[in-house]
Amino acid sequence: MIRIVILGTGNIGSHLVAAFENVSAIEVVQVYNRSEAGLKELRFRGSKTTQLDQLADADCYIIAVPDDVVAQISDNLPFENRFVVHTSGSVSLNELNSKNRKGVFYPLQTFSKNRKVYFNDIPLCLEATNQKDLELLKTMARTISSAVFEIDSEKRKHLHLAAVFVCNFVNHLYHIGHEITENHQLPFSILIPLIKETASKIERDAPMAMQTGPAKRNDTSTMKKHLDLLDIPIQKELYKLLSQAISESYGREKL
Amino acid sequence: MIRIVILGTGNIGSHLVAAFENVSAIEVVQVYNRSEAGLKELRFRGSKTTQLDQLADADCYIIAVPDDVVAQISDNLPFENRFVVHTSGSVSLNELNSKNRKGVFYPLQTFSKNRKVYFNDIPLCLEATNQKDLELLKTMARTISSAVFEIDSEKRKHLHLAAVFVCNFVNHLYHIGHEITENHQLPFSILIPLIKETASKIERDAPMAMQTGPAKRNDTSTMKKHLDLLDIPIQKELYKLLSQAISESYGREKL
Repeated sequence: MIRIVILGTGNIGSHLVAAFENVSAIEVVQVYNRSEAGLKELRFRGSKTTQLDQLADADCYIIAVPDDVVAQISDNLPFENRFVVHTSGSVSLNELNSKNRKGVFYPLQTFSKNRKVYFNDIPLCLEATNQKDLELLKTMARTISSAVFEIDSEKRKHLHLAAVFVCNFVNHLYHIGHEITENHQLPFSILIPLIKETASKIERDAPMAMQTGPAKRNDTSTMKKHLDLLDIPIQKELYKLLSQAISESYGREKL
Repeated sequence: MIRIVILGTGNIGSHLVAAFENVSAIEVVQVYNRSEAGLKELRFRGSKTTQLDQLADADCYIIAVPDDVVAQISDNLPFENRFVVHTSGSVSLNELNSKNRKGVFYPLQTFSKNRKVYFNDIPLCLEATNQKDLELLKTMARTISSAVFEIDSEKRKHLHLAAVFVCNFVNHLYHIGHEITENHQLPFSILIPLIKETASKIERDAPMAMQTGPAKRNDTSTMKKHLDLLDIPIQKELYKLLSQAISESYGREKL
């Protein structure tokens, strides 16, 4: 039985609690959150605490808090020589305090609190300073996912950057599509098959080969018409810059 | 039996030929393309021609050519008072020559030549100047898709603009993710579950509610680190502008 403590009940922490709670080989012995409110919302029948000095003994402490407080929480842990990991894509392993053994357990997914998550497909990107701890992380990871990767901090930061482009920025483009359709009495749902096909195409072929649209065709007349339709200045800027980026990327490839 | 002629054997034309060929209520009587090469590639056993003056008699002529030559082809048709439609999202119905009855048959999807397309889910956006022609288009559309919409030229141009954001621009962001992963010896496939979940989330909830990431959290420290990781100037610009757009859209909503 692997005993773990999860620190933080935000999007990632709460989903990890739910996932590990279903695994017989793992016991979530305690959940920490700095506020009572965060603990109250959480569906978890085990021990809960808002006090770092009351943390239970465990084989692994998973810090799932906002990136900018990971270091602080790890500094404030009242023990040494235990195994402490964080779950952040953009925080280096070395930002954890060296008084404990360090590791990373980064689930590469977008989490929203009220949306059910199926961990089985989610890539879990692992790192640890020693081999024994890495093996423990792998064992833990494999109980909830079949996509387990060993990825060091240097690679992980690039992976996280790529994730921002293909998830966070993509979602904002969905938002613009949503805004345009709503503003013109069109159902946003009419765009869903297109969105899904766009996301499916790149499973088999490189995105570069799947590019379509006016910028790809260098169809300046359509691009001008589109710019005229956009009212919000930053959306115009985005249209221009994204079109230019598409053109440039084809130019670059041709060299 | 509805007799149709398809003009153009590009991405849309070739897929329409393949789709209508499987429908018993529709006969594709002829396919036109300006070059022999385009006709040779096409899997179609019926009549093929490169000459507009040899077009067969039909109930509907579907012009599936690049946007900027739709008007020209329609001008050059050697007949009058027949029913002529185009398949373009961004071309108004009125760009078709008025010597024939006009219509639009716009499949809202991204087509790549070597990728099989299942029309059943594809929204078909229809328009015609008279009701009888519109009914014919609806009958035709329903033989291949269960998502048939009547959308006028004014709305269609906004819909096409939205499609550029959620498909063409999104695909370019996938390309950037592809480039970043390849450049750092990471498999692009590691991003696929994230890409799929991002595309799935917005089927149930508005994209605005599903936004995550450093720009949403106003996590300037992570954003700075990301900018330092990007080498290509236009990718830096895109990162900045998309982050700013996310911030602004939350600011706007709060007002």
